[in-house]
Amino acid sequence: MKKIVDIGKKILIANEEYALKNSQFLAEQKKLCLNMISSPGSGKTTILVRTITELKDKIKIGVIEGDIQTDLDAKRIKATEAPAIQIETGGSCHLSAAQVSNALENLLISTLDLIFIENVGNLVCPSAFELGEWGKIAVLSVAEGDDKPAKYPAIFAKSKVLLINKIDLLEAGTQVDFDIERAKADASKLNKDIAIFPVSARTGKGMAEWYNWLEESVKNIRG
Amino acid sequence: MKKIVDIGKKILIANEEYALKNSQFLAEQKKLCLNMISSPGSGKTTILVRTITELKDKIKIGVIEGDIQTDLDAKRIKATEAPAIQIETGGSCHLSAAQVSNALENLLISTLDLIFIENVGNLVCPSAFELGEWGKIAVLSVAEGDDKPAKYPAIFAKSKVLLINKIDLLEAGTQVDFDIERAKADASKLNKDIAIFPVSARTGKGMAEWYNWLEESVKNIRG
Repeated sequence: MKKIVDIGKKILIANEEYALKNSQFLAEQKKLCLNMISSPGSGKTTILVRTITELKDKIKIGVIEGDIQTDLDAKRIKATEAPAIQIETGGSCHLSAAQVSNALENLLISTLDLIFIENVGNLVCPSAFELGEWGKIAVLSVAEGDDKPAKYPAIFAKSKVLLINKIDLLEAGTQVDFDIERAKADASKLNKDIAIFPVSARTGKGMAEWYNWLEESVKNIRG
Repeated sequence: MKKIVDIGKKILIANEEYALKNSQFLAEQKKLCLNMISSPGSGKTTILVRTITELKDKIKIGVIEGDIQTDLDAKRIKATEAPAIQIETGGSCHLSAAQVSNALENLLISTLDLIFIENVGNLVCPSAFELGEWGKIAVLSVAEGDDKPAKYPAIFAKSKVLLINKIDLLEAGTQVDFDIERAKADASKLNKDIAIFPVSARTGKGMAEWYNWLEESVKNIRG
């Protein structure tokens, strides 16, 4: 068991080296880079498509799109005309910093303000692999239940922002009984600095606060 | 990279040995064992609670409950009075066959017909680790989107059953636009033998077909 743990550490250390390289490169270029992490189907791609479209006159956004298989998401991103690089992990449950390093070389970074990395849909593993991003964005949809910050704490403890998505499902007439205050309290207990925005990427509700946060963060990175 | 791949293989081989031991034990005891896999929040625990309660006069069910942290799910299972063993993986993104082997020793197997293993909420990693179960049950909620079988094929290719849960969210008045026929077609393309049951564990709709499948499977294992 000791040996396996040691090798696990070596994989993480090799990843950290690429992550550091990516983070230095992004800092030199003064570009904001955000790593989006969530379960499959919480709405990462829909959030990105709406964000890119609605901010297109203010912030130039590029996307590094991670998927185990298929380019379904990359096609949705490319339809917005944002520059996008697709990484198919071929089974792996998270993106690695080496893959991101390679993708960064192929994005026209100088034309961009903000690079989103859409990680593989998985609330667990991606949180252990730094990619060199400036911050992590956790996405949790109300359909997944308000107990998720308590049950999967790592990603909520490490994120700069929590987007609580699909709040349109909480309108009268549905049986979704997600308690936003419980999720907020549990996430804030894990991470007192986390910014939490309840949104509906489908209807647009709540997105303005998220956009303000993005604009502020781009401005701060530019210095 | 080669070394890392080799070690990865060794971990899988060590796991396979425990899985074989579990599967032989379960076959000798003539007990049905099902490994439930899904993303966080697709409704595994709610499905189990309803199934245990509604079948309690016909099938004696025990549960091995896997979570990264917290015993929130185990408490919900124990409220049904079904025997349950909790495994906290302490960060690991899937259950291992060794953990299940240990749990099987602590369940009163002779009093049971069926053991459910509720894996850690993760649509990716648990599908690579056999636990010695007779079959895998994939759960996908309609809130996650109908593109998931195409994007996360491994678990759908390996499962005996796909439960499409939360179909109550498809009723008029919500904006969930999951196409059940698309999900069925994609899952069946990956796995021509998969049995697919659209259900709502909340309202009970569609659960009768799932119960029939369970009763038939228990009968077949008893021989």
